[in-house]
Amino acid sequence: MSEPLSEDTLHRRFGEAGRSLPPEVTLPPGDDLAVVGHDDPILIGSDQVVLGRHVHPDESPYAIGRKAILRNLSDVAAMAARPVATVAAATLGPGHSMEWATELHRGLHETALAWKAPLVGGDLATHAVEDGPTVITVSIVARPATASGRVVTRTGGRPGDLLAVTGTLGGSLESGGGGRHLDFTPRVHEAIALTDAMNENLVAMMDLSDGVARDAGRLASAGTVVARIDIDSVPTTSGCDWRAALTDGEDYELLLACRTPPPPEVMSTPITVIGRLEAPSPGLPAGSVVVGEGETSERIDHLGWEHRQEG
Amino acid sequence: MSEPLSEDTLHRRFGEAGRSLPPEVTLPPGDDLAVVGHDDPILIGSDQVVLGRHVHPDESPYAIGRKAILRNLSDVAAMAARPVATVAAATLGPGHSMEWATELHRGLHETALAWKAPLVGGDLATHAVEDGPTVITVSIVARPATASGRVVTRTGGRPGDLLAVTGTLGGSLESGGGGRHLDFTPRVHEAIALTDAMNENLVAMMDLSDGVARDAGRLASAGTVVARIDIDSVPTTSGCDWRAALTDGEDYELLLACRTPPPPEVMSTPITVIGRLEAPSPGLPAGSVVVGEGETSERIDHLGWEHRQEG
Repeated sequence: MSEPLSEDTLHRRFGEAGRSLPPEVTLPPGDDLAVVGHDDPILIGSDQVVLGRHVHPDESPYAIGRKAILRNLSDVAAMAARPVATVAAATLGPGHSMEWATELHRGLHETALAWKAPLVGGDLATHAVEDGPTVITVSIVARPATASGRVVTRTGGRPGDLLAVTGTLGGSLESGGGGRHLDFTPRVHEAIALTDAMNENLVAMMDLSDGVARDAGRLASAGTVVARIDIDSVPTTSGCDWRAALTDGEDYELLLACRTPPPPEVMSTPITVIGRLEAPSPGLPAGSVVVGEGETSERIDHLGWEHRQEG
Repeated sequence: MSEPLSEDTLHRRFGEAGRSLPPEVTLPPGDDLAVVGHDDPILIGSDQVVLGRHVHPDESPYAIGRKAILRNLSDVAAMAARPVATVAAATLGPGHSMEWATELHRGLHETALAWKAPLVGGDLATHAVEDGPTVITVSIVARPATASGRVVTRTGGRPGDLLAVTGTLGGSLESGGGGRHLDFTPRVHEAIALTDAMNENLVAMMDLSDGVARDAGRLASAGTVVARIDIDSVPTTSGCDWRAALTDGEDYELLLACRTPPPPEVMSTPITVIGRLEAPSPGLPAGSVVVGEGETSERIDHLGWEHRQEG
């Protein structure tokens, strides 16, 4: 009998294949972006927005196009890199009008231009399946922002490092659609300012798309360490408790590990230390995320956001 | 009343927006790939394969993944560039199994690796719409293949230039699925060999995806010239007449304009002169494609391949 689809299993299998790549691939799949080339590296990645899955189908097409670009810019921020250009491919279902498609394009084009990641090409197709999904895929190319060519990956965290986040967490999706996830500020400028301020003491970074509970587990796993979160320190968005702040998705803030305390803010965006990285132990394997200390501690890396079918 | 979707109209509108891009975009949208940057240019493009549209849904998933990569490599060939890396995003409908998805990935990964365009990342999503389409988007990054950094665009053709094609044309799609379009050789190596052999005398190039009748119109339009085809010269695939050879889609051969006769072959692939470029005239505006001479000439640029819904 054939095995039903599982995104998680597929990601793991594809990740394994991604390890047998030639040496030109200087950072393999599995980080926010991949890096290709030694002397003059190029960063590249791809992210899609599926209507009914990542955005409510009734959102404005301009906002949908904008979000598709912003998600990719958030990946550039996560590497402390500088965007260069974007391309977009869209497959539209029969329910859309010319006006809808034109507004989608305007959201893509204007957002890309504003962030110095001009939309330079792409592809457009239509399908005839009534209620079939509309898919917008954006790919982005970036370059390192530092003269040294250094980018910040997920793998640098070590026991003793501090764990910090930009901005406030939680509540980015309003029930029934809308919310901050449609018009957030990717932390591109903040990430570059942070690397300028901290240099080698900024050791690991990623963007928060599935909540700290899950994403800190990824950062910890990449560094073969454990993340311990102090819930009283977590900067929550107004109206969110710590649990929502740690498990809501689509915040698009940065999660960083650093060897020395980060500045309290960069470019008016607060940076808050929310915990630290520790060595794994028999009860806490690498990749664990825990809140609290000692006997009252609780493992939370199984929590976190999973995208649902909105239909 | 809202205007129904038209791919052609959308392409034109988006192309107009693409002209207001910053000077870092050294070749704007509208060619096979865009070019960004002056000193160390990057080429980038995106192409999608929609099941039921570009391939029959019953084709093997390995062949579908392979085709998605090969189509992008054909765009790199069209610029006489060298591939660097690929990323892929897939949105899979509920009808697929894990085995299907794993084979799709293997087709993408192995083909990319074989062509030195390693698959370095991407995104995977599923949707729940029964019979909803499966979409695979591949984006590719390339660099110029020549030391000078020159790439070959569509715009260099002038009156008096020769028009030539690689390989043979027509019959790449078999009725009911299958056919050469699923496993063609993108002319990456041939294109580089041609630029090495011809240098500045190779003035314009593109790949053939919609048939010479339509694609020569695009090349002629980009150069504000007219293309005149000598039907007796057209190298037809066995079993195809000249009309099929000029209007069938998905050949993925190269169409080139050159100031001096091209070599008869490169890397064992024949190069055949099929016509010439001319100045437009009152009866033949720029972008026209004609076969024959004088009173027996026939305009054919309205012919050519349009992708159909295979359901």
